[in-house]
Amino acid sequence: MYKSKLLLLLLSGCICSCLFGQENIRSGAKEQVLSPEVHPDNSVTFRLVAPDATRVFLKGNWTTESSFPDGKIPMVKSNSIWSYTASGLPSDLFLYNVEIDGVLVNDPLNVYQIRDVNRTFNYFITNGERADLYKVQEVPHGTVAKRWYDSPTLGMTRRMTVYTPPGYEEGKEKYPVLYLLHGMGGDEEAWPTLGRAAQILDNMIARGQVKPMIVVMPNGHVSNTAAPGESSKGLYPIGFATPDVGTGKMEESFIDVVRFIEENYRVQAKKSSRAIAGLSMGGSHTLFTSAFLPDYFDYIGLFSAAFRMNDKAQSPVFSDFDHRLTKQKENGYRLYWIGMGKDDFLYETGQQFRKKLEEHGMMYHYHESEGGHTWSNWRTYLTLFLPKLFQ
Amino acid sequence: MYKSKLLLLLLSGCICSCLFGQENIRSGAKEQVLSPEVHPDNSVTFRLVAPDATRVFLKGNWTTESSFPDGKIPMVKSNSIWSYTASGLPSDLFLYNVEIDGVLVNDPLNVYQIRDVNRTFNYFITNGERADLYKVQEVPHGTVAKRWYDSPTLGMTRRMTVYTPPGYEEGKEKYPVLYLLHGMGGDEEAWPTLGRAAQILDNMIARGQVKPMIVVMPNGHVSNTAAPGESSKGLYPIGFATPDVGTGKMEESFIDVVRFIEENYRVQAKKSSRAIAGLSMGGSHTLFTSAFLPDYFDYIGLFSAAFRMNDKAQSPVFSDFDHRLTKQKENGYRLYWIGMGKDDFLYETGQQFRKKLEEHGMMYHYHESEGGHTWSNWRTYLTLFLPKLFQ
Repeated sequence: MYKSKLLLLLLSGCICSCLFGQENIRSGAKEQVLSPEVHPDNSVTFRLVAPDATRVFLKGNWTTESSFPDGKIPMVKSNSIWSYTASGLPSDLFLYNVEIDGVLVNDPLNVYQIRDVNRTFNYFITNGERADLYKVQEVPHGTVAKRWYDSPTLGMTRRMTVYTPPGYEEGKEKYPVLYLLHGMGGDEEAWPTLGRAAQILDNMIARGQVKPMIVVMPNGHVSNTAAPGESSKGLYPIGFATPDVGTGKMEESFIDVVRFIEENYRVQAKKSSRAIAGLSMGGSHTLFTSAFLPDYFDYIGLFSAAFRMNDKAQSPVFSDFDHRLTKQKENGYRLYWIGMGKDDFLYETGQQFRKKLEEHGMMYHYHESEGGHTWSNWRTYLTLFLPKLFQ
Repeated sequence: MYKSKLLLLLLSGCICSCLFGQENIRSGAKEQVLSPEVHPDNSVTFRLVAPDATRVFLKGNWTTESSFPDGKIPMVKSNSIWSYTASGLPSDLFLYNVEIDGVLVNDPLNVYQIRDVNRTFNYFITNGERADLYKVQEVPHGTVAKRWYDSPTLGMTRRMTVYTPPGYEEGKEKYPVLYLLHGMGGDEEAWPTLGRAAQILDNMIARGQVKPMIVVMPNGHVSNTAAPGESSKGLYPIGFATPDVGTGKMEESFIDVVRFIEENYRVQAKKSSRAIAGLSMGGSHTLFTSAFLPDYFDYIGLFSAAFRMNDKAQSPVFSDFDHRLTKQKENGYRLYWIGMGKDDFLYETGQQFRKKLEEHGMMYHYHESEGGHTWSNWRTYLTLFLPKLFQ
């Protein structure tokens, strides 16, 4: 067949489990079972085709231990399909897995997954105001780039994620910069995936609520050059980079990040056009970096921040910290924003850090939310913090 | 505790299943079970912790139906852990899933996954010469960006992946461009993930085997603006974009892709510095686009190419195709490269297209490989094609 009827063949299902374009082309003949199915009222139905399984549970990050043992919701079998409908979920992004005969795995019908440390979770997004900020909308989109930079301080070439706003590449304008830092389990992929940073920026810029800005998401683990699988360390096993936590090296080497951005992007290289924010460990990096470089940042954001993470560490970052805070106050800043959840295990730490700022007579904005140490809160904090920047 | 001992607490396992930095931090106390474990001799051990499962299979893209029914390898249980060791795999990247009591899912111990159409597969990379090209090595790395461009021909803003070589952003040099197209099941994420395009380019440029170049990976489905989950269509269900296949619209609108790149990147905007290559449907796009724009490309690569995918389609791309080929020949080109696997279901189509080129007196380079319509072949073809470009 010279004039091949490949498409026709494929559509008619003749090229069964075969390989076309990609190796995996499923036959379209089977009725499609959907999971998850998000209904208009934010109830969500999960389904699993498992005729031979004996016990199937759903484990979502919205389920609590109090409502179900181990937070595991039993799914119910009917005609080979196990299902469960969660009702009335709030407007947000959610993570979940399914447990099949005792093994926690991904929902095989949902290709959308996010890695968090050394596990992957399926995700879905419900409807409503908050979720609308996390979805890809028909608005101009910025560029998301994975880029490598030299860190002379660390003697490494390292990977970062850079968001440039719509119009950046085509224009001549100079932009302000937000440095956005992840937590202890994260890397340069955390804010772009779990944090939906690019979607939030695209949507809030399009609404005119947020100034167009460059957002720089570096890797906060100084013993790693890049996220798991993206460095020359190879794929396995995934080391959990704890020894580098709280050493002060991230803060000491932060100047390399800023220098790289200011030499390679069209930016407003001045204090009033620089912001830094981070969650948990990244909050610790944020507060120490902004005090270590007290003439660098006019906008500081602490999201569920940790404070000092290693009391033993010898670093100029920690020595004389109170003096550095004084200097930061003298130099002035426009916003010191603190977000904390009522149930966060770092709540007390947060209150004590507020007291420290008050002792120094440093102004700050405090936002206390429901909930704890969660990406749901961190996404929200980002949407609250962004509109206050560079105004 | 003002000077918090959080790190210590965490390491000692006190913050059990808790939430720090990322929401998911596993206790490090448990002994780590590895899966997959790639041994130095390229045998690979897969493990699944599933005390209560009754039947566990491994399904890899290297297993054949002839060696195991349905290509499913039974795993063997010992002390709650199911395992299987595959021996002597070639040097390559492989995909697999596990089947637990009848349900095909991802290996829960392996976070590395690639989406292929509407399924996800775990992947691993063995050792050896070929695999070395697919791994992240300690070499200078290019930038990989997801970027949106306007297509006036289609009346859409669309997403593409752009690889810029190491040094691009810092320098002033102008670069040649390879346009690299995916197959029918793919999108702008296929070559960067399944194809390991960025790793191949980084490694071969570092070895001096390949000229530094920009590689542009657009989305070949003109009814979509972006890959599943990355467009305003939302997450579910994942439509399989067949109606747009073979309409000629991709070829007609290709000028928008080239124009965007040449207006927005430092490129050598001339025929001798433009290459186009594609696999399967992308091979069809390649051959028709290069003939439709006969003064654009000096390098053409067909990887397991389909020919005409919709005989009924009305498009200037298909009308008078032989005349366009004649024009392409008259204009001249430096390389017409064809790669095809002996077992490819498009093998005959490929031979007939070769005959057509011969009837037109058009020179081409033909590479026939073992195997069929597989990413293993397409990655190899890329490594063979790249060194011939822009020399």
